[in-house]
This record gives sequence, structure tokens and C-alpha cells, in this order.
Amino acid sequence: MVIVMKPGVSQEKIQALVATLEKDHGVTVGVTNGVGCSILGLVGDTAHIDMDKLTMNDDVERVMRVQEPYKKANRKFHPEDTVVDVSGVPVGGGAGFAVIAGPCSVESEDQIVGVARDVKAAGAALLRGGAFKPRTSPYSFQGMGADGLELLLEAKADTGLPIVSELMAPRYCQLFEEKVDLVQIGARNMQNFDLLKEAGKLSKPILLKRGLSNTYEEWIMSAEYIMAAGNENVILCERGVRTFETYTRNTLDLSAIPAIRRMSHLPIVVDPSHAAGMYWMVEPLAMAAVAVGADGLMVEVHNDPPHAKCDGAQSLTPDKFAHLMGKLNPLIELMGKKLV
Amino acid sequence: MVIVMKPGVSQEKIQALVATLEKDHGVTVGVTNGVGCSILGLVGDTAHIDMDKLTMNDDVERVMRVQEPYKKANRKFHPEDTVVDVSGVPVGGGAGFAVIAGPCSVESEDQIVGVARDVKAAGAALLRGGAFKPRTSPYSFQGMGADGLELLLEAKADTGLPIVSELMAPRYCQLFEEKVDLVQIGARNMQNFDLLKEAGKLSKPILLKRGLSNTYEEWIMSAEYIMAAGNENVILCERGVRTFETYTRNTLDLSAIPAIRRMSHLPIVVDPSHAAGMYWMVEPLAMAAVAVGADGLMVEVHNDPPHAKCDGAQSLTPDKFAHLMGKLNPLIELMGKKLV
Amino acid sequence: MVIVMKPGVSQEKIQALVATLEKDHGVTVGVTNGVGCSILGLVGDTAHIDMDKLTMNDDVERVMRVQEPYKKANRKFHPEDTVVDVSGVPVGGGAGFAVIAGPCSVESEDQIVGVARDVKAAGAALLRGGAFKPRTSPYSFQGMGADGLELLLEAKADTGLPIVSELMAPRYCQLFEEKVDLVQIGARNMQNFDLLKEAGKLSKPILLKRGLSNTYEEWIMSAEYIMAAGNENVILCERGVRTFETYTRNTLDLSAIPAIRRMSHLPIVVDPSHAAGMYWMVEPLAMAAVAVGADGLMVEVHNDPPHAKCDGAQSLTPDKFAHLMGKLNPLIELMGKKLV
Amino acid sequence: MVIVMKPGVSQEKIQALVATLEKDHGVTVGVTNGVGCSILGLVGDTAHIDMDKLTMNDDVERVMRVQEPYKKANRKFHPEDTVVDVSGVPVGGGAGFAVIAGPCSVESEDQIVGVARDVKAAGAALLRGGAFKPRTSPYSFQGMGADGLELLLEAKADTGLPIVSELMAPRYCQLFEEKVDLVQIGARNMQNFDLLKEAGKLSKPILLKRGLSNTYEEWIMSAEYIMAAGNENVILCERGVRTFETYTRNTLDLSAIPAIRRMSHLPIVVDPSHAAGMYWMVEPLAMAAVAVGADGLMVEVHNDPPHAKCDGAQSLTPDKFAHLMGKLNPLIELMGKKLV
Repeated sequence: MVIVMKPGVSQEKIQALVATLEKDHGVTVGVTNGVGCSILGLVGDTAHIDMDKLTMNDDVERVMRVQEPYKKANRKFHPEDTVVDVSGVPVGGGAGFAVIAGPCSVESEDQIVGVARDVKAAGAALLRGGAFKPRTSPYSFQGMGADGLELLLEAKADTGLPIVSELMAPRYCQLFEEKVDLVQIGARNMQNFDLLKEAGKLSKPILLKRGLSNTYEEWIMSAEYIMAAGNENVILCERGVRTFETYTRNTLDLSAIPAIRRMSHLPIVVDPSHAAGMYWMVEPLAMAAVAVGADGLMVEVHNDPPHAKCDGAQSLTPDKFAHLMGKLNPLIELMGKKLV
Repeated sequence: MVIVMKPGVSQEKIQALVATLEKDHGVTVGVTNGVGCSILGLVGDTAHIDMDKLTMNDDVERVMRVQEPYKKANRKFHPEDTVVDVSGVPVGGGAGFAVIAGPCSVESEDQIVGVARDVKAAGAALLRGGAFKPRTSPYSFQGMGADGLELLLEAKADTGLPIVSELMAPRYCQLFEEKVDLVQIGARNMQNFDLLKEAGKLSKPILLKRGLSNTYEEWIMSAEYIMAAGNENVILCERGVRTFETYTRNTLDLSAIPAIRRMSHLPIVVDPSHAAGMYWMVEPLAMAAVAVGADGLMVEVHNDPPHAKCDGAQSLTPDKFAHLMGKLNPLIELMGKKLV
Repeated sequence: MVIVMKPGVSQEKIQALVATLEKDHGVTVGVTNGVGCSILGLVGDTAHIDMDKLTMNDDVERVMRVQEPYKKANRKFHPEDTVVDVSGVPVGGGAGFAVIAGPCSVESEDQIVGVARDVKAAGAALLRGGAFKPRTSPYSFQGMGADGLELLLEAKADTGLPIVSELMAPRYCQLFEEKVDLVQIGARNMQNFDLLKEAGKLSKPILLKRGLSNTYEEWIMSAEYIMAAGNENVILCERGVRTFETYTRNTLDLSAIPAIRRMSHLPIVVDPSHAAGMYWMVEPLAMAAVAVGADGLMVEVHNDPPHAKCDGAQSLTPDKFAHLMGKLNPLIELMGKKLV
Repeated sequence: MVIVMKPGVSQEKIQALVATLEKDHGVTVGVTNGVGCSILGLVGDTAHIDMDKLTMNDDVERVMRVQEPYKKANRKFHPEDTVVDVSGVPVGGGAGFAVIAGPCSVESEDQIVGVARDVKAAGAALLRGGAFKPRTSPYSFQGMGADGLELLLEAKADTGLPIVSELMAPRYCQLFEEKVDLVQIGARNMQNFDLLKEAGKLSKPILLKRGLSNTYEEWIMSAEYIMAAGNENVILCERGVRTFETYTRNTLDLSAIPAIRRMSHLPIVVDPSHAAGMYWMVEPLAMAAVAVGADGLMVEVHNDPPHAKCDGAQSLTPDKFAHLMGKLNPLIELMGKKLV
């Protein structure tokens, strides 16, 4: 941590601040005095020093953190890639590539079992399907709820694909713990801290989507919430951020993949469907996601997009998904990976 | 709703689509044919037509909504301003101006009772204080929880000020229903739809903060969630949005006040403290909020900001708050309002 | 400036870097060594040290600037407010409030002389009018060019109001030097550095609009370009920034006024018309701009908005402008200022 | 174009507006009347109808454009890909992949000739080098100017690589017309309309970078400026946009490639160096750019990044560039293209 003192602050005051910092926080403080200002360098465990409070000191001009505020998710302390085991499917680690596919929402047994068979045949490793749906409008379809999870389990029994579904509230934690293989936290809940703490108590791995306008650091801090509560199996999912551009639903930020790779040891996958919002853009963005080094993809596939209950416009048909997988496969190999 | 057909689509196909729309949705469809394209105008109750599905039609180029997707919060259907009664304090309506003040978090009985007396003396109508705190880091102070609410009640008993506190999870709904006069939903939970639905079942009014990167329409849609669930007493609170500018904590968007005024009948207040993130900027932004026509303010006040457990940097001391109120008063009068 | 070294870098390497920095740049460097990392604090004239180059050093983790990169525009070195004299009209300084008004573009003698008389009667101090127009489309009206300036001069002769017009290219510098009282640099040219340098050679004051997505610091750096080239008479103009919100044309950032006031000694005015993009929103935003402490306003006024050649939707009629001035006047007085 | 009338407007008024529109603009107008509102669909050549003016009509609620405002750059009217010939190097068209490489700024003969030889050996088709540099600070190195172009010409003579350099002001147009093979317009000048018009008079092709916060449509409109002025050889370059994320210098928006492909026939290349701002992120982003379907890349390469006069932090050494090209080559082949 670095503290920049205001011009003209006396040495007495500076020494008093140094003494307080060293005594209260057990850190070492070095002082560099100049004509314009003095700079205090703090080394040691500064994680618990409150920057805000220091900023309130009338003699302080600015306080800057030089170390990351996260620990468990920090690559510095865990240099090896984490591989998350999703009921037998390994995600992360650099050798495998995991494709999660399925409809935005579960609508019927026929639909979800049919799509599950199709995406498995095309090479998907995990089946996604929304049972509880976060919708902007209270008048839109809100999902089948617990019944949707039962249908996902039928599709799992039929195909063997582990299932991924979104958890929207703490009260469903027990249900998800029992039924779901990979528990998704959606973008709009990325900083629903109460939900994060509860997710941290589950034994099932968590897929944490990036919030619409959250930085890499805030995203990792949300993973840290889950990890600090006891669940270290977190997979991050980039799904686009909000910008001034309205042509796409969101702006997919593929720089997140190399950035997160450097900041954290957690696996990271990409959801091109929600980013684009248009089915015809999914293929080029999926190709880019593989090439940039993602550990996997999450793609929306629906048997009948024009009649989908949500997000039809961005869903691929099973045929288009099979075509996409045909395109992705040689690229995955070129990247030195193979489908898990 | 307007549907733009792709160039070259046959009249047969267009007529078939028109027939389907009129039959399935009971709307009236007019067609304008031109060389480049055909335009379909749909009038009637189009709220339940799914734009996404229409977009999936191969003959359709684009679909545009021409009416707002919200009803209960829509000024068109409720031309009069709504005045929300917060345990006797009226918020909204154009005649009164309500000031909510208090610390970011409740820390002790002395602290909250002391601040309550000070802000009441200076003219505040409602006392704010966080008991459950949404913090970016799991290692930061998370609030006193239910004990904090008890201390707020002591401050209320002492001063008569109704209390405002943030609800972070559905499981605390019953507690807040009993203890709190105005239930705050924070910016990071603005699209926590499960929480919105639960808030809609409370008898207490709701203060709904704008999300960090949410549009006016999305914000009103979140109010609509609460209203559709049965609670029509919603106050909106502008607290700054996320932009590329990092000098301020957030960018306060005061255009929201005249915009929301036109779109909705709900009251709207401004939180300059969270927007600025720096105490010295609170006064000019508060002045601007009054002048732009807000129905009230929400200001962070702490007895000892340098030792506050959170957000000290943006908190005013009781003295500075009293000074602010002295500045605001003549402006409130000039706007034809008076403090409630 | 602060340099954070990577963990594990040897003391020899650190001492070598310190020696180089002290020798090459004449600065004083203090070192704080800790277990996790070492921090170097540099004091002295660090303005010419290239942060990028230091970042390239393999032993360096991060480089942070602690001092502002601007000098001439910096309030630290010029504590007093600058008052810019625009042909007799003082802008800035805290006592006066300057209103600039007029049409988006000059269209005819009748139009500009008529509007000039109207806005003068209502209290405007300066007449604006576009002669060269920056338009998104090459097929839109591009302005009357030099002829427009002549018509502005007729309006000036008739009313005595000094004139403000936008300079779009270096080749017109001579023309503007001769004809215009206050030379505007538009938002889209805020980082047209060649134009800034040329503007710095003029004897006329410059009105520098903020770019659509530029930070306060970048904006001041652009003022610094003009000042470094010899012209210290710069007025800043906040006109809204680009965000995800599309209801308004831009998001007016009124926090810029107190922020710039602290960072710089230059005057700052607000353009609510371009920010809002809708005439009915100009009044509340103008009120807020006065209350937040701006030194003036720039408002679009057109005699016949529905037939304006550009920006009609955001233009006030002379009647509405007179009404606005009636509303603003008591507020300006309340702020302890008066119209200049 | 679609016009939505306000509720309650009489049929007489609507018919009068229809008659005016049909008479003044030669368009066909269809009217759909409903209980809530009436919708007018306009077909024909609506490009010259001013939406702003219609919006000013008191009976009009909203006006929406349904057709693109650009023509020459519009794929609808030019279905075939445009291939731009840069002194013999074809850019665009789907079969070739063009790599532009070189230093941020030309610094000396040795430097530029050395880098030119290195990048040519590694497979680059065009040599970039800045002679006139747009810098945020007036105190930073501003480039060698015309001398820099001479050094670029020496490097061209030595290697045969056509040269790319940035044009910052109209006054250098003649110089660039004579010396440079591909004239770059930088991000900060994307809406410097005067410069665009002048670029439109050159015989040399133009590389138009996307502005920091400009939409796809605005970007194409700037290309349209150049094309409308007579120069149809425009290559677009995505280089990242400004968002709230500060870890990267800019947020690279790879969705732009499939989007622009659909909107326009112009070639599009990607600059991963300026987007990332960090050399170690260039490789993954370059891979992603190839995979998403870009027509080429623009990469910063410097012989001695720690001593570069600008942008050293994002520059590759010649060795790292050769390594990058080795990685890109099999991917380019997989995409069915080959290096030009």
C-alpha cells in the first residue's frame, strides 16, 4: 500500500502516522521525502487496512493499493491451474475443452431430452437448462421452477450428461445441492453477496457469470466470497459486458480470458450466445473464444428457436450446433486440447 | 409494435403473417408496401407478443416496440404523482422535500442515537443505517445484522425518525416487515428478481436504488416487479452509474430525474454520497439534485468518518450536514417546496 | 511516482534501478523492503519519466503516478480562479454567471439577428451559432461556412453580443482569429491534437468541450495542449458523456464541475442542450448546472425548432428561453452570483 | 421510417401529415389506427427526411428509422466483399490475411529498417510506423514528422514493404499522398469530419480506426464520409473501445468483425496491441482475431521496447513477433486463408 501525503505536512505528523500504522497493523513503513510531497510505502499484510479511513486523514492526499485484495482465487498463491470436477467432467487445466449446451429454459420433457441427445451426439459434455429464469419483465415466462429440474434429471438419466442450471435465491440451495451438477450464478446476481455466501456452503461446483458492468477484480472478489465460505470449485464465465454499443446484446470481452488466466488459477469459459444475442454471431465468437484460450464454451441450443419461451433469437438449432462443433473441433486440436 | 420485412418477401407470406398475428394476439395490423421493404404496424395490446420470436422469422428484418413494457409504474396510466407514506412522512408529490440521513452502517447505540439526534436537529425526516452490508470483499465488515436493526429502533424511539435500512435477502423479509419503515433494495440487487418479488409482498414501502449499469426502463421494470407482486409504494433512488470516469466513485445521472418524472408517477430521490464517493463533493451534488427537481435526498452522515467501519470517505460529519441543510433550505423554498 | 517491484527481485537489482533513476532523472528514491514485495517511492520532477518504459522492466510489477501530468491548468500551481475575458464578458471567478445562447447552426440573416435580439433581451451575454457543422452523416447539412460567420457578425453589430462559433480545422484559424470572439473546439475534436496546437496560437479565448468518452484528466490535458502552445484563455464545457443509457442523447456529468474546480483553475460551463437532446429536459438540467456551481451555460435557441436545419429537437424557442432565464435568475442570485 | 403518433391525435391531423410527407418527400405512407395510438409506415427514399424535425411535431410521439443511413459502405447495395489494393497487397475478400507490423513511432533509420527486415522475414505484408503521433500529453514525444516518413521510405526501399502511417491533419494530405501507401486515420480523429473529407480526395487507400466510444453505425458513417468524397478504398480497424474496465487499455470488441461483415462490404482488420496495452496479451487476442474472421492484423513491433519512445509496454520484440507469426500461421490456414 502506498500513502501520498499532502504538500507541506510536517515530519512530526508523518512520523506519528508511521508509528500508528506500524503499531496497529504490524506493517513496515518506509518514507521518501521530497520537495513536493512525501510518499509512504507500506509492506506486510495490508489486506486488513481500510483505505477509506486513511483517505479521511486530512494530511493524506491519496492512498493506493499495490496488492490484490483476493487470496484464495489469486494465482500468486496457487500457481497451478485449478481443474474443477463436474460430476466426472474436468473443467480447466489446459488439456481439455468443455462444451456446455442446451436451451435457455426447460419447457417440456420432449424438448429437453431431445436437445440433450442432440448436443451429446455433437460433442457437448454438460447440459444446460434454465428452471428458474431471471427476466427483466415480471410479465415474461419465469421458468418451470423445480419441475424444470426434474425434467433436466430425466435428460441426464437418458444421456448421462451432468446438468447445469441457474440458482436465483438462497432458499433453493438445498434443492440445487441435491439435483444439479454445476450450479450457475447469473450475471445479475454476481454481487448478490448473500447468495454467494450460501453458494459457498454447497458441495457442488459453481459457475459464476461476470456481471454486466463488473471489473475483473470485482468478479474475482465474488469468486473469493464463494471460496472463503468453503467452496473452492468455482468456474468463471465471461458473457459480455454493457457498453454504449447496442447492435449486440452485450460486448463480449475476450481479453478477460488472458487477464483472468494471469490473475487467478480458476477455469474460465465463454458464453457467446448471451453476448451476441443473435444466433448467427455465435459461431465466429465461439471460434474466437477457443483461439483466445478459454477452457470451454456455454452455448444455447433449442429444438425450435422461433417458438422458444425465451432467448430464441440467440439459440442455435441442433443442426447448427452440430455444424458449429464440426468447425470448432480442428481449432480445439490446433490449440493442443481435446473435447472432454 | 412495428415489423420490418426483409426486401423481396412475397405478399402471400406477408398476408399469412398478418393473419397469424391478428388471430393469435387480437391485434390490428396495417401493411405499407414499398420497393425496398414492407412495414407492418401492429396496434392493440402488444405487451404479450414476444419480439424475440418474431425476430426468428426468416422473412423478418427487424422488430421494434413502440410502447413501454411497464404498466403499473407508467405515468400514462397514472397521470398523478404518487406520494409514498413512510410512517407518516410523505415522499413525492411536488410539495415536500424529504431528507434521509444517517451512517453507512450502524456501529453502536451511542453512534446511531447520536447521529439520529444530530440529523433530526438539522432537518432530516428519515434515519438511514445499514445493518446488513453488501461489501465487495468477503473480508470487509459485513454489518451488525439483526442487532443493527434493534439499535436503529432505539434511535427511532429516541428521535421519532422512521428508519430506512437495506434488505439483502428474502429470508430477512419478515424481520424487515416488523422493524423497518422504508425497506431499501440496493443497487447490486436491482435485478435480483427473487428479492423483488418478495419485497412486493411486504406492507412497507420500498426504496429501489438504480443498478450500476441499468437503464431507466430496466429500473422501472424492477419497480414493476415489486408493484405487480402487490406493493405499489415504491420510491426510486438515483445513486450514480458506472462509466469510464474513475475520479468519482460513480457518475451521478441527474437527467434521470426529469426522465423518470415523464415516464413514471413514482417519487424519485438522489443519493449524492455514493455517487461522489468523496464527502467534499456531496454539497454541490445535493444542491444540483434539489434544483433538478428530486423529491428528496439520501445523505451519509457519520459522527467520526475517519473511524467509520465503511464509506467514511464519503460521509459528512453532523456539523457538515447541518451546514449542508442550511445551504439547501433556501433552494428548496425557491423550488416551491418545503422540508417534510 | 511509485514503483512496485516483483516478489523475489534481488537487492542488487533494486539498488541498480535506484541508481539509474537518480542519475538519469535527478529524483530522490526511497525503498521500502518487505516480504512480499519492495516499493520504490520517487519524489522530485517525475513528469518526464516515461511510465511505459519502467513497466517494460522485467523486475517491475507496477508503476503508479502520484502527481498530475498537467501544470499550466493545475490549480496546485495557480490557486486563484482564472477569469477569461471574452471581448469584455468575464467568464469564471465565482461572481458572474455567463449565458451563451443561440441556434445550433446559422441559417439566414433574419434567423440569426432575430434570435440574437431575443436572447439578448432575455439576458444572454454571448451569441452562439454554428457556421461549420460536425455532422455524423456526410449527407446532412454541413453549415453555411464562412458566410455563416458574416451573418454572426451582423447579429453582433446589431446587438453587441460577442460571438461563439466552432472551429473544425486548422485552415480556418486565421478566419476565426479575425471574426470570432470565443472559438469553440467541439467534443469530437477534443483530442484532435493538431487543432489544439493551432488553437494555442490564437489570441482569442477557446471554449473546449469535453469529449464523449474522455476523463477529466484527459480533458485538462487537452486544455494543457492549448495553454502550452501559448493561449491560456481556456473555458471548459461539460456537455454529457456516452454511457449505456440511450434515453438521453448523452449523460450529463455534473460531478465534473466540483471535480474540475478542484483540479484546475479554469472556468467551466455546462451545455444542457446537447446532453439532453430533448428541449423539455433543458430547464431542469440548466437549473442543476447553476446549483452545482457552473460558471455559465450554453443553450440552444432557435426561432422555429421544427424547421431547424439541425438539432431542432433540443432547441428552445425564444419564448421558452425567456421563461428559462426567468427561472434561473433567482437561483443565480441565491448562489451569490449575477448574470454578466 | 416509422412515425408513432401520440394517443388521441385526430384523423384530420394524421391525414394532413401523411399528405405533407407524400408531397414533400415522395414517399408512400401507410397508416394503422388503433385504440392506443396510430402508426405511420413510410417506404421509399427516406434517407433525406430529418427525423429531428418530425420529432418536433407536437402530435408525434416517436420516430424510428428502419433503414441504414449509409449507402456506399452498405453491403445491401454491394453484396460482394471489397478487396482494397495497398500498392499490390490485397486486403479483404476472404482468401488472404494481411499482417501490418512495425513500431509505434519511427525513431531512427537503424530502428525502422531493422524492424522492417525482421517483420518481413516473419511474414508481415505491410510496415507501420508513426511519424506524426497523437499523444495525450503535450509534453510527450510528438513524432519525427516528415523526417519519419523519409525513414519509412528507406525501409520500404530496403524491404519492398508498402508503408502505413497516421495522417493527423489536412495540411499533410499532399505529403501522405506522395509518400505513404496506406493512410491511417486514428481513433481520436474518427469523427474529425474535415479530415475525413480531405482523406476522401486522396488516391491512396485509408485505414480507418474505430473511435474510442463509437458505434458500428457511426464508424461506417465515417467511412461513408471518405467514400462520398470520392475514395472508396477504406479498410476498417477495430482497436478496442472504452469501458469501465481499466485492467486493459481498451476493451477489444471482436463482435465488430461479424457485425461489420454483415453491415458492410469493406475489409476489417484488428489491432490487438492498442486494445491490450500489454505485450503479453497480444498473442491470445491476435489468435482470437484470426478465428473470428478478421481480414488482417496490425501489431506493434519494436527492436527495444524498454527504450521505445512510445507504447513500449504493448510492443513485441522481433523475436516475439516471429513466434506469434508461427502460432498464427496454422490458424490462418485452418480458416482457409493464407498470408498475403
